[in-house]
Amino acid sequence: MTTFDSLWSDILDVGQHPATRGYRRYAWSDADLTLREWFTGCATSRGMDVEEDRNGNIWAWWMPPGWIGDPRDAFVTGSHLDSVPDGGAFDGPLGVVSAFAAVDLLRERGVVPSIPVAVVAFSDEEGARFGVACVGSQLTTGALDADRARGLRDIDGISLAEAMTRAGRRPEDLGVDERLQERVGVYVELHVEQGRGLDLVDRPIAVASSIWPHGRWEFTFRGEANHAGATRLVDRHDPMLAFASSVHSARSCAASHGAVATFGKVLVSPNGANAIPSEIRAWLDARAADEATLTALVDQIGRQATAHAAVDGIGLEIEAESITPIVEFPEAPRARVQRALAELGDIPVLPTQAGHDAGILSAVLPTAMLFVRNPTGVSHSPEEYAEMDDCHRGAQALATVMTDWVTR
Amino acid sequence: MTTFDSLWSDILDVGQHPATRGYRRYAWSDADLTLREWFTGCATSRGMDVEEDRNGNIWAWWMPPGWIGDPRDAFVTGSHLDSVPDGGAFDGPLGVVSAFAAVDLLRERGVVPSIPVAVVAFSDEEGARFGVACVGSQLTTGALDADRARGLRDIDGISLAEAMTRAGRRPEDLGVDERLQERVGVYVELHVEQGRGLDLVDRPIAVASSIWPHGRWEFTFRGEANHAGATRLVDRHDPMLAFASSVHSARSCAASHGAVATFGKVLVSPNGANAIPSEIRAWLDARAADEATLTALVDQIGRQATAHAAVDGIGLEIEAESITPIVEFPEAPRARVQRALAELGDIPVLPTQAGHDAGILSAVLPTAMLFVRNPTGVSHSPEEYAEMDDCHRGAQALATVMTDWVTR
Repeated sequence: MTTFDSLWSDILDVGQHPATRGYRRYAWSDADLTLREWFTGCATSRGMDVEEDRNGNIWAWWMPPGWIGDPRDAFVTGSHLDSVPDGGAFDGPLGVVSAFAAVDLLRERGVVPSIPVAVVAFSDEEGARFGVACVGSQLTTGALDADRARGLRDIDGISLAEAMTRAGRRPEDLGVDERLQERVGVYVELHVEQGRGLDLVDRPIAVASSIWPHGRWEFTFRGEANHAGATRLVDRHDPMLAFASSVHSARSCAASHGAVATFGKVLVSPNGANAIPSEIRAWLDARAADEATLTALVDQIGRQATAHAAVDGIGLEIEAESITPIVEFPEAPRARVQRALAELGDIPVLPTQAGHDAGILSAVLPTAMLFVRNPTGVSHSPEEYAEMDDCHRGAQALATVMTDWVTR
Repeated sequence: MTTFDSLWSDILDVGQHPATRGYRRYAWSDADLTLREWFTGCATSRGMDVEEDRNGNIWAWWMPPGWIGDPRDAFVTGSHLDSVPDGGAFDGPLGVVSAFAAVDLLRERGVVPSIPVAVVAFSDEEGARFGVACVGSQLTTGALDADRARGLRDIDGISLAEAMTRAGRRPEDLGVDERLQERVGVYVELHVEQGRGLDLVDRPIAVASSIWPHGRWEFTFRGEANHAGATRLVDRHDPMLAFASSVHSARSCAASHGAVATFGKVLVSPNGANAIPSEIRAWLDARAADEATLTALVDQIGRQATAHAAVDGIGLEIEAESITPIVEFPEAPRARVQRALAELGDIPVLPTQAGHDAGILSAVLPTAMLFVRNPTGVSHSPEEYAEMDDCHRGAQALATVMTDWVTR
């Protein structure tokens, strides 16, 4: 697997923070642009045509010999290249590197595709910069409105439209890709597992059954800034207390629903050591096995937070930033993947609590996912890890699936 | 009071954030440098000699006619020009503006001083940027070690030494001002009140009795970053929970000690909506009427936070960033101020929970403070406010005190 290894090592230092060792590959940042150039280089060195669509997703095409006209019913595989703040090396890039490595494996074996093949890197999957996840795939399928996307702002107040313009792109072009369903026959995304499901059963590869419904809600607690020394406790409207209570509400409500809920992002204003905060913005990430449970969970957390805020005379606004319904991956492509990989025995079928572009695309076309074992289950962290042997197995499996699909 | 009004309006827009309307006048920032230029302009237009001492404190001297040699036993008044994040217009600048306005009033009245007079602006009183308050006055009196000061770092990792160098200053010169006690006979600082003491008794001006002992402690909660969706609740080491519990511990411990304690500054890493935090740094500001109570309070909060952290397998480090002992303002200068202001009736004598340069200086020379009524008690906030009539009364009172002191 020398191809995999060299592709992998090419990008290991891109966007890596020297102190945390975590990756900061935010949409349309310098690191993202460097990865896009790397993607283009990988494609052109393989004689694949590169196309960046209206939403910033990049496609590298391997067309069957003698194919005339636009791609149709292609086998598409890939993932994304952006990261969460201080994320790991695998979440996203593993799928893109494995896709190029699989193409190389087919060529080494002399496989000639009878249908178009594409490697894709979807834009801004994590939503780390502009707050909405899967921006590229959501725009392309119409799940995200182009005007809303253009107006999303990062922490410095820069809009997505401005960030794209600075990167030399045309935000006015954002919108649904009408060609998508005709061009893509199936999308198979390979991804590092983000839990310990495979580790617990001691297997290297799984296929996905479903993605839990999930979403992000922004909680804004509004109090009154004041002097931390000179303001009596009884005179305070300190939003930190209601926020702190809400952190515990989220945990206990999630536990009672068999779900997960997390406040992982918090912005305090003015954030001075000797000032009572005026405002706290905190993002709730919540996920559950089904949509009714998710709704009940978030409603309950919201009611409890509202009660906490009322105690201290704090204003509270709760805004749904994004809500992704449950994704049940379709039976037919999953069964075909499993049949193609029969040599590996019964492939475990696992749900995932993490969102993916494959989940977004599944609303409009056939999709499937492969997971590669994560021995610690840690993800969205510099500690995220997979054994190189398992990564090689993943790329081999993807090549096997690709061969099955493109030679019929 | 046209002099006061024009001085006041000169700087009203310096460092004011257009959205929050709060002031961001951090030490050695562009806003701070603009205010220093304004101070120099005020002094030179009044024929006062300007001197920036080795610690960045700026002094404007009004010498008696025929005075030869260095200043000695001067009447010094002033305050500071920097702010907390999104602070108000009054905390600091009111004392400097009132000092220049008082000089003008004496001159209008033909008062000729028999001892030197100085207006001073102490550097970096709030400690908003480098985490330690009263840096200028602490260095000058020897309360803060020069090496430690030089190594203090702001949120971007820039050291105080680097910030001073960029501002064209010489951080290698920082240190005790050996001339201070000989040169300064008394320091009288006028300041907006930061509570409602004067409002509650319906009076415009007070003198200070004492400053509560107070300090800042940095709490670092260390957990394990992980995926907010894919990590089971039982597998988490989320430092947000222990932090949230500690917020409530701080409030309830403060209440039981008749003190105040606040977590107003919080930094979450990596601060991604779909990532369990790896680390939370939170600053505790705590103040109490006496030092034994303060120590007991912070010990209790620390013990409770440690217990909260243990529950979730979270590491906790607590570091004292600065601790300021109680300041009891000396009887003699306070009595003299009260006598000089006898025309205003019995002046209320109030303690304050806020730290001030006058408190630092009181360790080595006679000091007193005047407070100007704050009708809402709000401070360290864009809503901080004082009536202009009261500000004029403050400057008049300062001029009366100055006249009494410099004409004997």
